[in-house]
Amino acid sequence: MKFLKMNISVISKIPNLMKELKIALPQLNFQEINEELETNITNAEIIVGDYDLLAPHIYNLPKTKWVQGTWAGLDAIMPHINKPLPYLLTRFSGQHFGQMMAEYVITNIVNHERDFYAISENQKACNWSQDGNINNYRVISDLTIGIMGIGNIGSWIGKCLNLLGAKVLAYGRRPSVQLTGEYSYISEYFAKPGLPMFLKNSDYIINVLPTTSETRGLLNGNVLQNCKERESVFINVGRGTIIDEKDLIHALNNKWISQAILDVFLVEPLPKDSPLWTMSQVKITPHVAAVSKPKHVAEQFKENYELFINNKPIPTTVNLANEY
Amino acid sequence: MKFLKMNISVISKIPNLMKELKIALPQLNFQEINEELETNITNAEIIVGDYDLLAPHIYNLPKTKWVQGTWAGLDAIMPHINKPLPYLLTRFSGQHFGQMMAEYVITNIVNHERDFYAISENQKACNWSQDGNINNYRVISDLTIGIMGIGNIGSWIGKCLNLLGAKVLAYGRRPSVQLTGEYSYISEYFAKPGLPMFLKNSDYIINVLPTTSETRGLLNGNVLQNCKERESVFINVGRGTIIDEKDLIHALNNKWISQAILDVFLVEPLPKDSPLWTMSQVKITPHVAAVSKPKHVAEQFKENYELFINNKPIPTTVNLANEY
Repeated sequence: MKFLKMNISVISKIPNLMKELKIALPQLNFQEINEELETNITNAEIIVGDYDLLAPHIYNLPKTKWVQGTWAGLDAIMPHINKPLPYLLTRFSGQHFGQMMAEYVITNIVNHERDFYAISENQKACNWSQDGNINNYRVISDLTIGIMGIGNIGSWIGKCLNLLGAKVLAYGRRPSVQLTGEYSYISEYFAKPGLPMFLKNSDYIINVLPTTSETRGLLNGNVLQNCKERESVFINVGRGTIIDEKDLIHALNNKWISQAILDVFLVEPLPKDSPLWTMSQVKITPHVAAVSKPKHVAEQFKENYELFINNKPIPTTVNLANEY
Repeated sequence: MKFLKMNISVISKIPNLMKELKIALPQLNFQEINEELETNITNAEIIVGDYDLLAPHIYNLPKTKWVQGTWAGLDAIMPHINKPLPYLLTRFSGQHFGQMMAEYVITNIVNHERDFYAISENQKACNWSQDGNINNYRVISDLTIGIMGIGNIGSWIGKCLNLLGAKVLAYGRRPSVQLTGEYSYISEYFAKPGLPMFLKNSDYIINVLPTTSETRGLLNGNVLQNCKERESVFINVGRGTIIDEKDLIHALNNKWISQAILDVFLVEPLPKDSPLWTMSQVKITPHVAAVSKPKHVAEQFKENYELFINNKPIPTTVNLANEY
């Protein structure tokens, strides 16, 4: 098989990625590129790479047939794309990434509902207190949880929440979705015109959407006013572009939403002077909901490589028309 | 059906339980007993009750055919049982309780692995830090998690952890278990002689076992020395009787286990002078991993009632020989 002799170049700052790729596919020839990037990259036939390192070179890869990215969001590369790419581009996503996001979301819901941070403070005072929400909490099976974006990641979040008893609503780009098989975890699906109803009925809103021209500012203005009856909690693990900071703060101050749990921001690291840091209704995590682990990237590259050499479609292939 | 006319007595401190029972089974006649308990209880044919309130009366219920308990652990009633009970006794357990326990366990694992309490402290200082485990964490799919006790609750915990990618080991009373169907979430099962190997191979040990003569002190002495290679984390949501406090502290001080996350204790509330309160390797929650919600108790009573009037076995029936 001629592909076995292909030159696979690795351009990444993820520690140990080369090591894990060689463990996953010992029969292949990987070449790490970190010096003289511009000279060496033009010979690469297959690339496993970080988008930010690749971005300046995307139209200067004459021998490249396939680029496997090392994370999910295309933000670093999209602004550089202005015409079709002459090779296949696939994102890193899938089960591992989805499970990581799911455990982040579950944990943040439970920490909030059960006042786990207060329990931790009580321990410092040797205080066995069951006050407030500590003993009188909503469990996930009491909640209706709306997920914005039901690709691989959103679906993993939804499946796990559903097993824990949540009623799951879904919002997405497609006009409709069959709620069977892989989507059987969804109770009700909402497309764009249904956004207000989706928000109205969700105790939690989990945003997993990538940045695209359709999602940018989607929750801006008064959109979150739809949440005011349930005083929903907003969890953002997608991208900070979905809502401007000032509109988010306005929604919190007006109690349209009762809490925001944010892992992603318009500017990262979040600037020291952002009012979000000190608001009691805001929890901030420093963009760590899911990370690209070298072993997981290598495992996914292996799976995709099998598909690639057999001319089969790769599920995480980027569709430029959709911007992800 | 003659059972429809049965007198169902409710003896419980759970708020709103009567209300929820009437919603679940509007055709039945419920009677709340809180005054003159001793007189009224002797007429009860079916009882829905808290074990501590029932305990003094268990051999003085001449008309009673069935007692449905309102929580899972029999600790309050077991010491009073010294001969067979002339009626059916069923515990409250099942899906809702299992899901609550599962979300508690997942959340505590993730809080520990990802340093969520440190992230919360960082926020107070407006500090976007990804140091330590914050960005370099183990996810549940990296972990082997051992569950002690695979009844309803343990199985729910196991299923949820398995969906999140964990390899699940199980320890139980039965000599062996078929790892198919309802137990397909288990990778390997260990009975009593396998306890050391079970502990050796688990990154986390989740105790869900009830108090029985077999489980009392099961982890006492040097048993946890088996954990020293992995420096396992011990989560106790079962009963505090599984290990004496001094042996647990010894295991922590010797780094056989790296962390203990405890919801249950030999004495509750945990006394102010317990050294556990101030140990950095101990997280304490005040027996709140799962609570009996009136709606859930009512739903389970409804399910069990259908089985009872049709003379079908009820899954959570207490077997006095097993002590649960």
